[in-house]
Amino acid sequence: MHVIDALSAVLPPTRIVRDPDVLAAYSRDQAAWAPRGAAVALVRPEDAEQVRKVVAVCAERGVPIVPRGAGTGLSGGANAVDGCVLLAMDGMDRILEIDPDEQLAVVQPGVVNDRLRAEAAGHGLWYPPDPASSPWSTIGGNVATNAGGVCCVKYGVTRDYVLGLQAVTGTGDLVRLGRRTRKGVAGYDLAGLFVGSEGTLGVITEITVRLLRLPEGAPTTIVGAFDSLVAAGRAVAAVGAAGITPSALELVDRYCLRAVDDWKNMGLADLGDVLLLGRVDDGDERAAAAMLECFDRAGAAWSTRSTDAEEAEALFSARRLAYPALERLGPVLTEDVCVPRGLVPEMLARIEKHARAHDVHIANIAHAGDGNLHPLIVVPAGDDEARARAQLAFEEILDDAIALGGTVTGEHGVGLLKKRGMHAEVGEDVLALHRAIKSALDPAGIFNPGKII
Amino acid sequence: MHVIDALSAVLPPTRIVRDPDVLAAYSRDQAAWAPRGAAVALVRPEDAEQVRKVVAVCAERGVPIVPRGAGTGLSGGANAVDGCVLLAMDGMDRILEIDPDEQLAVVQPGVVNDRLRAEAAGHGLWYPPDPASSPWSTIGGNVATNAGGVCCVKYGVTRDYVLGLQAVTGTGDLVRLGRRTRKGVAGYDLAGLFVGSEGTLGVITEITVRLLRLPEGAPTTIVGAFDSLVAAGRAVAAVGAAGITPSALELVDRYCLRAVDDWKNMGLADLGDVLLLGRVDDGDERAAAAMLECFDRAGAAWSTRSTDAEEAEALFSARRLAYPALERLGPVLTEDVCVPRGLVPEMLARIEKHARAHDVHIANIAHAGDGNLHPLIVVPAGDDEARARAQLAFEEILDDAIALGGTVTGEHGVGLLKKRGMHAEVGEDVLALHRAIKSALDPAGIFNPGKII
Repeated sequence: MHVIDALSAVLPPTRIVRDPDVLAAYSRDQAAWAPRGAAVALVRPEDAEQVRKVVAVCAERGVPIVPRGAGTGLSGGANAVDGCVLLAMDGMDRILEIDPDEQLAVVQPGVVNDRLRAEAAGHGLWYPPDPASSPWSTIGGNVATNAGGVCCVKYGVTRDYVLGLQAVTGTGDLVRLGRRTRKGVAGYDLAGLFVGSEGTLGVITEITVRLLRLPEGAPTTIVGAFDSLVAAGRAVAAVGAAGITPSALELVDRYCLRAVDDWKNMGLADLGDVLLLGRVDDGDERAAAAMLECFDRAGAAWSTRSTDAEEAEALFSARRLAYPALERLGPVLTEDVCVPRGLVPEMLARIEKHARAHDVHIANIAHAGDGNLHPLIVVPAGDDEARARAQLAFEEILDDAIALGGTVTGEHGVGLLKKRGMHAEVGEDVLALHRAIKSALDPAGIFNPGKII
Repeated sequence: MHVIDALSAVLPPTRIVRDPDVLAAYSRDQAAWAPRGAAVALVRPEDAEQVRKVVAVCAERGVPIVPRGAGTGLSGGANAVDGCVLLAMDGMDRILEIDPDEQLAVVQPGVVNDRLRAEAAGHGLWYPPDPASSPWSTIGGNVATNAGGVCCVKYGVTRDYVLGLQAVTGTGDLVRLGRRTRKGVAGYDLAGLFVGSEGTLGVITEITVRLLRLPEGAPTTIVGAFDSLVAAGRAVAAVGAAGITPSALELVDRYCLRAVDDWKNMGLADLGDVLLLGRVDDGDERAAAAMLECFDRAGAAWSTRSTDAEEAEALFSARRLAYPALERLGPVLTEDVCVPRGLVPEMLARIEKHARAHDVHIANIAHAGDGNLHPLIVVPAGDDEARARAQLAFEEILDDAIALGGTVTGEHGVGLLKKRGMHAEVGEDVLALHRAIKSALDPAGIFNPGKII
């Protein structure tokens, strides 16, 4: 039986989409530069049992399955491969439980990040992971990529909040991994292994996350304007060396500020060439003063602190809007390198060098406090020569991150764009361990083949 | 060539021990009740290259390797299996690096926990994981079991601090897993998979851990005395439901207080039947007051708060001394169940019921704030009938933890003692995933066979 007929035998007809326009729209994520194949169908399961059936149908026939959330990924991890079934999890979008006493939530993978955060806030609780895509991206996608965000510098990444998962494995079993309790070491950390595996080990059908109490009081925002990327980088290294733990430390450069201004008319570019946006939690007055001093000593053109929530929100929204603002100017090739934070100035200097050497525009936003930099290489649409130069710069930046003891991807994942870089980073022996685990959990090789490894 | 001859060909003679008394001493951990086999040799490598050679020799011959740190484990995870080579990592005990700017340390596996903590403190830094065994247990052993401790309720467990590992795998390769940077998603979380794998996937030869800044100011200690375990359990559930995040919340019962008194003459048993020892970080006055209120509402016989460091240290040292104090009374069968913290009173009630039903003494210490309970079943030495009754109670307590949505092991690991319980907890499908991963990374099946799975 053909895979479509077999899917039709186990799913309601409304759950299978074959319209070529819809398939094309669902065949890629936000990584404009990553290649994509042609899917045979898009399937929208309503529950875990339907997922199980789809996996069984595909496993029997060796048909690839590409799971996807909202498609906000930046590495091509959700891009279609030829002949695949796209498994869109956006229909499984129920918040199944919020338990204030145990401080946890159980959600389906299609729940949008901001929706979980809003729902948790209604109970006085907080789900910290806050990727810039939080208004659109799903918890399932966040888990698949181990998404980060602005909060990570103090509060950690998605993996730090995942207690347990329900997933369909390569053997077609629907299994529960991990736990509901606050601690647990009964066997291997299989839930943790699934986090960040980018859909290559199975399909996640339910997620249990740990929640924190919603912070009380307003945070203090510390802003510094710098004349150069490297000076801002020095301030970041100084904050680290001073042992300050901010709850955010973001960098936005002139390119990004101008792009946001052109779009939203916010007047940001007047503030300076490079902005650092720091935040400390309520009550941490000493950290706020120390951060301001680090900014000033590193040569800030000006610096200020504020507890005005509206002002702070405007600055941080500029940070969030930077990526879509740049996308308006042309295809964006997004880097996600992470280096030891003391080497942030050196890495920023190298990025500028690559921009000059390859004659490409590189804008910079960064979760600077983590050493997680997002150089964004923008080329005019249709300029194939600039595109080729950009690709060279992209790979050289990856190699520099590795050379500085860093990683090619801090939070976006490997997907398709960073396969060469990741393989260079981990080496052949560790790649072999990846292949062994992939084969062990996905013997038919159907889950998102060609991604990561 | 016999395994001993082969080992002699690749190691200095002083690194191979065959003395039967030494072998016997190194053939077990602190789980007095777990079975142990007879090792053919004890090997004490000086460096990773020697570990690699030992693994190669053993893999070629199918000889089991049982890695061990200080042998303070409580589940039999480090116990010898027949014909094995014991790989004692205590000779690889160098702190290779402490980087205050990046807030990380690189250590060999044999470094004792308290030594790392002291060394880090010299740089104003803090390695939080603090198992009660911290004066003796090694970081390698802590990583192998994903050790917890008193701090976990606020600061998490060992896994939360491991950034990267160097390990020798089943293919005999010496590999680096994980990273040095604060974030990183380049491939599967193999470092995280090794944490808590109890020596069954490879031999850890180096560990990179994240450090925090040493907390400033003295914590406040909140003590409550209760007439019953269940009343103390109600106070624990109330602290959770009130959204308080203590930096410690420990329970010690009358049995333990008396045992410590008998040994150290501290006069603790006069304080009450069951003590809760809470701690909040400096400056968290509201939490201290709220916790005191929770204790009182749950029916505390008395309660008090203190910032006297000496007083607090005396109480928490009673908590740490409870286990060795009980060991003086007879063989101790140690539980490590973890349940949702709202169900702590119910679990404590069930433990008391099992003690009565099986006519055994069960003492209780607990990381109560995490729902992680350590019922300690003590029987008179040589009383085989009591021992049989204790074993029944042990298994029934595991089943009750599972029935309450908990786990059979919160922080001690599965080892030998909790294999049946763990298999009941995770089920056959998830056990099959464990076996698949074990086979993928340890194809010859030489690493600590018969543990966990």
